Amino acid sequence: MTTDLYAEVQHFYARQMRLMDIRDFVAFADTFTEDGEFSHSPGQLARTRAGIVAELEDFHKRYDNDPLVRRHWFNMIIVDPQEDGSLLTSYYAYVINTRPGVEPQLGPSCVVSDVLVRDAGGQLLNKSRVVRQDRLLLES
Amino acid sequence: MTTDLYAEVQHFYARQMRLMDIRDFVAFADTFTEDGEFSHSPGQLARTRAGIVAELEDFHKRYDNDPLVRRHWFNMIIVDPQEDGSLLTSYYAYVINTRPGVEPQLGPSCVVSDVLVRDAGGQLLNKSRVVRQDRLLLES
Amino acid sequence: MTTDLYAEVQHFYARQMRLMDIRDFVAFADTFTEDGEFSHSPGQLARTRAGIVAELEDFHKRYDNDPLVRRHWFNMIIVDPQEDGSLLTSYYAYVINTRPGVEPQLGPSCVVSDVLVRDAGGQLLNKSRVVRQDRLLLES
Repeated sequence: MTTDLYAEVQHFYARQMRLMDIRDFVAFADTFTEDGEFSHSPGQLARTRAGIVAELEDFHKRYDNDPLVRRHWFNMIIVDPQEDGSLLTSYYAYVINTRPGVEPQLGPSCVVSDVLVRDAGGQLLNKSRVVRQDRLLLES
Repeated sequence: MTTDLYAEVQHFYARQMRLMDIRDFVAFADTFTEDGEFSHSPGQLARTRAGIVAELEDFHKRYDNDPLVRRHWFNMIIVDPQEDGSLLTSYYAYVINTRPGVEPQLGPSCVVSDVLVRDAGGQLLNKSRVVRQDRLLLES
Repeated sequence: MTTDLYAEVQHFYARQMRLMDIRDFVAFADTFTEDGEFSHSPGQLARTRAGIVAELEDFHKRYDNDPLVRRHWFNMIIVDPQEDGSLLTSYYAYVINTRPGVEPQLGPSCVVSDVLVRDAGGQLLNKSRVVRQDRLLLES
């Protein structure tokens, strides 16, 4: 693997998650393929860009009366290029939650698994994302 | 953008903030241009290397009787090269605060916006830095 | 220094620490040279791959009755290539600890110093690692 690719993936995630954190869900969904899949919880799976937007809008309703700034941090990224040109990535993630008048809170620690592909212009896109919270590893 | 540039920016920040965290404010200020600007709070702006040193010395007086190790973490860096050769960057940041006998504390979550330029030798320097705490986004 | 090297080091750490976090200590020790040295506490030093495995197995016994997922985060990495081809690195680190039914906890903030070398195939390996917790800097 070229290390160029590694920095490209890091940069892709920085831009992508900024869109999530400013709650521009349409722009976030555009970082997925048209048929992209996004699962943030076991048993839940959003399909297609429109489906991802709908899922995120629904998910964020819980914050309607909860003033909150969320910041997603990704780190310790592993990138495994596949023979078909796609990239399998796996990395650690959490959210830093800021609410009025209290210390910032660390959200759940997660391991995320992505399949990244390129569009016709060579730009990276998520074909899929699966987020798994570490706490689920502790349940039997 | 070349991805070489992305790693160069990451490395620049790692070296720069180590200087801040060991409180070598003169060396930290030298990572700014001579006319560099640094704002860590709304309404506050330090100008020139000497002004940045003075601001940091003043700021850190609050820790004179507060034994504390601070570690700045930057992540999710977005780099936008400009036509004039400068770089606009935007990234997430917080400080990990360690005090005797208590668990480490997560400082305020921030978004930082820098303008980076190169000196005659090609080395990156901050022309400006603006830090904004997320909690300020929640105040009306 | 080439920035390729910087991404290579980041990627090496991501793969290495995943092995630690899934508690595959043999595979983790294989990311060290045969005569590698690993110190995570003052006065403690594990030598050789077998010695590192033994140290980690012993260390993790404290978690035998403490269901816990640990995730090591490294960031703000400084890489200094040496004339002999080795790399001195220094970086910030902490662990995110997840236990059942409680919020994730931030472990001690540390600064880590590594010597990295290459094996015959060019792959990076730790020749040594020294971890120092920030709280130790506050003790006289």
